Amino acid sequence: MGSLPMADKELDGFHIEQRHGKDRVRVARVWRTKEGRHFIVEWSVSISLFSDCLASYVRDDNSDIVATDTMKNTVYAKAKECSEQLSVEDFAILLAKHFTSFYSQVSGAIVKIVEKPWERAYIDGQPHEHGFKLGSEKHTTEVFVKKSGIVKLVSGIEGLSVLKTTMSGFEGFIRDKYTALPETRERILATEITASWKYTYENLSNIPQKPLYFSQRYLDVKNILLGTFFGPPKEGVYSASVQATLYQMEKAVLNKFPDISAMQLKMPNLHFLPVNISGKENPAIVKFNDDVYLPTSEPHGSIEASLSHFWSRM
Amino acid sequence: MGSLPMADKELDGFHIEQRHGKDRVRVARVWRTKEGRHFIVEWSVSISLFSDCLASYVRDDNSDIVATDTMKNTVYAKAKECSEQLSVEDFAILLAKHFTSFYSQVSGAIVKIVEKPWERAYIDGQPHEHGFKLGSEKHTTEVFVKKSGIVKLVSGIEGLSVLKTTMSGFEGFIRDKYTALPETRERILATEITASWKYTYENLSNIPQKPLYFSQRYLDVKNILLGTFFGPPKEGVYSASVQATLYQMEKAVLNKFPDISAMQLKMPNLHFLPVNISGKENPAIVKFNDDVYLPTSEPHGSIEASLSHFWSRM
Amino acid sequence: MGSLPMADKELDGFHIEQRHGKDRVRVARVWRTKEGRHFIVEWSVSISLFSDCLASYVRDDNSDIVATDTMKNTVYAKAKECSEQLSVEDFAILLAKHFTSFYSQVSGAIVKIVEKPWERAYIDGQPHEHGFKLGSEKHTTEVFVKKSGIVKLVSGIEGLSVLKTTMSGFEGFIRDKYTALPETRERILATEITASWKYTYENLSNIPQKPLYFSQRYLDVKNILLGTFFGPPKEGVYSASVQATLYQMEKAVLNKFPDISAMQLKMPNLHFLPVNISGKENPAIVKFNDDVYLPTSEPHGSIEASLSHFWSRM
Amino acid sequence: MGSLPMADKELDGFHIEQRHGKDRVRVARVWRTKEGRHFIVEWSVSISLFSDCLASYVRDDNSDIVATDTMKNTVYAKAKECSEQLSVEDFAILLAKHFTSFYSQVSGAIVKIVEKPWERAYIDGQPHEHGFKLGSEKHTTEVFVKKSGIVKLVSGIEGLSVLKTTMSGFEGFIRDKYTALPETRERILATEITASWKYTYENLSNIPQKPLYFSQRYLDVKNILLGTFFGPPKEGVYSASVQATLYQMEKAVLNKFPDISAMQLKMPNLHFLPVNISGKENPAIVKFNDDVYLPTSEPHGSIEASLSHFWSRM
Repeated sequence: MGSLPMADKELDGFHIEQRHGKDRVRVARVWRTKEGRHFIVEWSVSISLFSDCLASYVRDDNSDIVATDTMKNTVYAKAKECSEQLSVEDFAILLAKHFTSFYSQVSGAIVKIVEKPWERAYIDGQPHEHGFKLGSEKHTTEVFVKKSGIVKLVSGIEGLSVLKTTMSGFEGFIRDKYTALPETRERILATEITASWKYTYENLSNIPQKPLYFSQRYLDVKNILLGTFFGPPKEGVYSASVQATLYQMEKAVLNKFPDISAMQLKMPNLHFLPVNISGKENPAIVKFNDDVYLPTSEPHGSIEASLSHFWSRM
Repeated sequence: MGSLPMADKELDGFHIEQRHGKDRVRVARVWRTKEGRHFIVEWSVSISLFSDCLASYVRDDNSDIVATDTMKNTVYAKAKECSEQLSVEDFAILLAKHFTSFYSQVSGAIVKIVEKPWERAYIDGQPHEHGFKLGSEKHTTEVFVKKSGIVKLVSGIEGLSVLKTTMSGFEGFIRDKYTALPETRERILATEITASWKYTYENLSNIPQKPLYFSQRYLDVKNILLGTFFGPPKEGVYSASVQATLYQMEKAVLNKFPDISAMQLKMPNLHFLPVNISGKENPAIVKFNDDVYLPTSEPHGSIEASLSHFWSRM
Repeated sequence: MGSLPMADKELDGFHIEQRHGKDRVRVARVWRTKEGRHFIVEWSVSISLFSDCLASYVRDDNSDIVATDTMKNTVYAKAKECSEQLSVEDFAILLAKHFTSFYSQVSGAIVKIVEKPWERAYIDGQPHEHGFKLGSEKHTTEVFVKKSGIVKLVSGIEGLSVLKTTMSGFEGFIRDKYTALPETRERILATEITASWKYTYENLSNIPQKPLYFSQRYLDVKNILLGTFFGPPKEGVYSASVQATLYQMEKAVLNKFPDISAMQLKMPNLHFLPVNISGKENPAIVKFNDDVYLPTSEPHGSIEASLSHFWSRM
Repeated sequence: MGSLPMADKELDGFHIEQRHGKDRVRVARVWRTKEGRHFIVEWSVSISLFSDCLASYVRDDNSDIVATDTMKNTVYAKAKECSEQLSVEDFAILLAKHFTSFYSQVSGAIVKIVEKPWERAYIDGQPHEHGFKLGSEKHTTEVFVKKSGIVKLVSGIEGLSVLKTTMSGFEGFIRDKYTALPETRERILATEITASWKYTYENLSNIPQKPLYFSQRYLDVKNILLGTFFGPPKEGVYSASVQATLYQMEKAVLNKFPDISAMQLKMPNLHFLPVNISGKENPAIVKFNDDVYLPTSEPHGSIEASLSHFWSRM
């Protein structure tokens, strides 16, 4: 969602933009079926409110402030009210809607949630009724709700690390007096994908009511991203640059899901450098032959782009 | 600087915004005077270029791409050219200016640098000629330069952790059915300040040429922030809320420095909770008396605001 | 392996224990079959040498020092020599053996490696020939080799996070004037397991030569640990304490694998606190009913134990 | 203190070593003088108990377990009892003594504490009565107390990062077919020191009673370490290797303080690599001249040693 909006006012001869909230409110919710199957979600919730509380800034008057401790309590109270399992998106919307409708002072609310990837455990191939194991990449969401009911709903993935050992190259780029990088048609391509996509729903009244609708969408989008990054299981697909691959991934998602209007990908190029080592006495301690690589974290290339239908923006 | 701009184009029936660069390029530069005194800076540099390279996204044609490896080399080449010690801001400007002027394809460049806080060591009260010790908070800068010479220059502080043991309270806020927090006029106030301020200079041609001008400004701003947060050494100053204190700090900076047009502060409220512990059998294991606190990291309040002169925005 | 041994000598009127090495040497190795299937490992290698180089400490004489840069180069050179895929244990042994046999000054070597959990990607249910995705928990190993050929070989798991939503309690513990915790037979049990196990092989000459022998053992041990922690898929198994569960897990591994002589588990108790919130005005903002929990990271219980056959120690 | 001891027993046909405790218990304690000057400490406390509670492992019988929640409460209760400011060492001893004397089941206790480096703030050169700012390196302690009153007391420093821009070299080391590193008499030497030192006091009855005795020792040891690392302010001191410098530092501390019997230093060699960049077309993009360096975090050299008087060990 990029830079978040702020409540925006004139004050004391200055212009002020402000918001306040509570970050990292951790909550877990368990549901149990009669048959003994359990479900759990663990969420880290961040709340930001835009509210008319300028008196607190200039006159030591807190009478229009929703205490951040109260926001925290609300997360738990609302989690308790959820008697059925729900998507992280639906919980974020429910919270944001509460704050904008319950408090006259609050004109808008942003709720961001990161879901911890607890996955059902399997024992001898059987799903466990109440056992869970932590997976890797995380489902995120960020929703902005205005008092009027206008919504901006963005979902995402954090920490989706992928790598392919071939079918990647980088050639034909600008060469100048600062250029040392050789061209290649054979390299490792590795990245840690951060994805976010914006849904078309622009009002609280037209959010899909189907249970776990957004949980399914998350899985579907992830599959499209992975399938496009890797290509077919046997042949793969050639990547001419991170840019080209990123663009194919975004286009595939936008073409597939009519209720997604924009998509952003950040795909740092996590270099696996060819290892060539030579000393003065020993000209070839190690000579690279597409076999031994030095994986690095810094520096890394940073490639990011957002693609959208004309009638939308990220 | 909030959400960064992107190169913005129509493409293949879609709308695209993109940028690419190199993150976490680490460089250290040493200068030595004839008298034997050494100076060192250590910088972590991030570069983002806005460039006309859409062919790389859609046609596997990289001929307009500045390789991120080339950007990295440029950091070292330009550091070498700096024969005199310079501020982190001046180095960021120098780099951004290079990219926008050297490459016809590059319309804009953002350079962000974090400076590692190496401080001259003191031995028996004497400054050491070539010895340095790591301090705490960090000086940052972020500069956006367009080909036209238009500049946006922001400096900042990261990780400035401060705490006062009294002269802080929070009263009179909204009480409703989700409210549990008691009112108080006596609490610990602790935060880790992230500050950024925007300079008024809007063109490469009017950046001050005085050596280390921005390094001095950084120290001056930090002093104002600390002085306003803590108040006078003997009496201190009462804080009615994080909001009120934050606002006083921003106002003090804007009133003091005419070449700063806007200031943003993020001041998470890092709670030091009063410790009261009771069990069923033991009603008062610990009873709070402004003495024993539980410091926490999550959740925390999140308060942020930017203040600006009317003719500017953060 | 607990506290590592050090080269141990008298020196200058003092007693000295020392070692030196190279940490965090990152290497990736790719193997490709003729049929087009690729395999990759990514390792972070740490080396410690015990060597007779006391002259470097007291006389500025480095003539007996293996430079840590040389150790780094050796990692790459040896990775290159591995023309067949091998287990992380076998690579650690190979390196340690090299250092103790190649250098007369080196009496012992410890090599510790953490393997990054790259897993083959699946597209539409098919394994991808050259695509990989990052998993969660990590395979580790630590091997100590002496010049004589004596070996201590330990393998492990890092970051295996598991949780069960029921079938856990804690009752009957000591109650005294500092006790506030209620007894319970129904709670969430969550932990991040760090496991290590010692193999019985005590000499380089009797290490199993079967390819990927230790890679398979790693998977087998992990399965036993998970199966014992969770219990059968339908009913689970009751945990009377972290201690009791940890002990069952260790015993199961020792009873199953005759070539494992000792096992250590660290299982921090990562609390999921029942949420009960009340204010002065609102006695029951949230009332716990085995539904809403507060997951915390600090503080946490720390439970660790090692179990071994009588003829061995961890 | 290296590998910590464990309670050690035979069990069920196996040999078991175990301990349990509470980690990361955070507590802050404030003291206020009548004149209005405040003092604060913030500690993160870890407790490990060796206790006779094997029944909890094998028979689901928790009757000999001190709940880790009770340990946590005790930290706060004991902090409250401290009506005068005390050193982190004295608080650790007080806690460990409590656990071993209060519980018949507890034969030994280890308490480890990390102190957050809050430093008094200065405003216009004046110390602030109740304002504090976070510094950099941390004071640590680890104490092991047995029921008999026997004590092992270790204090330490974490995160003391230092760097010198000259007066460091590395020559004359072993050269072989894996060696590429050139010899040099001019390089940057940078490290992040982790220090620990053992006091001679071996019984609770002979710990010095002077208030803040160990707080002063901590400052004194740090000064000796820094003075030896950097050398005199004007000339510095030549370092022939990390080993040589480390040894000088340890020897200086042992020679200076009669109540310190052993000292351990870990001084990773954090490389600042000379920058030389060349491409095929551009043989000298950057040529190193003791001016531009690439600071790295991985890999790094790892050098550690402990020095002790003959009658002691670390």
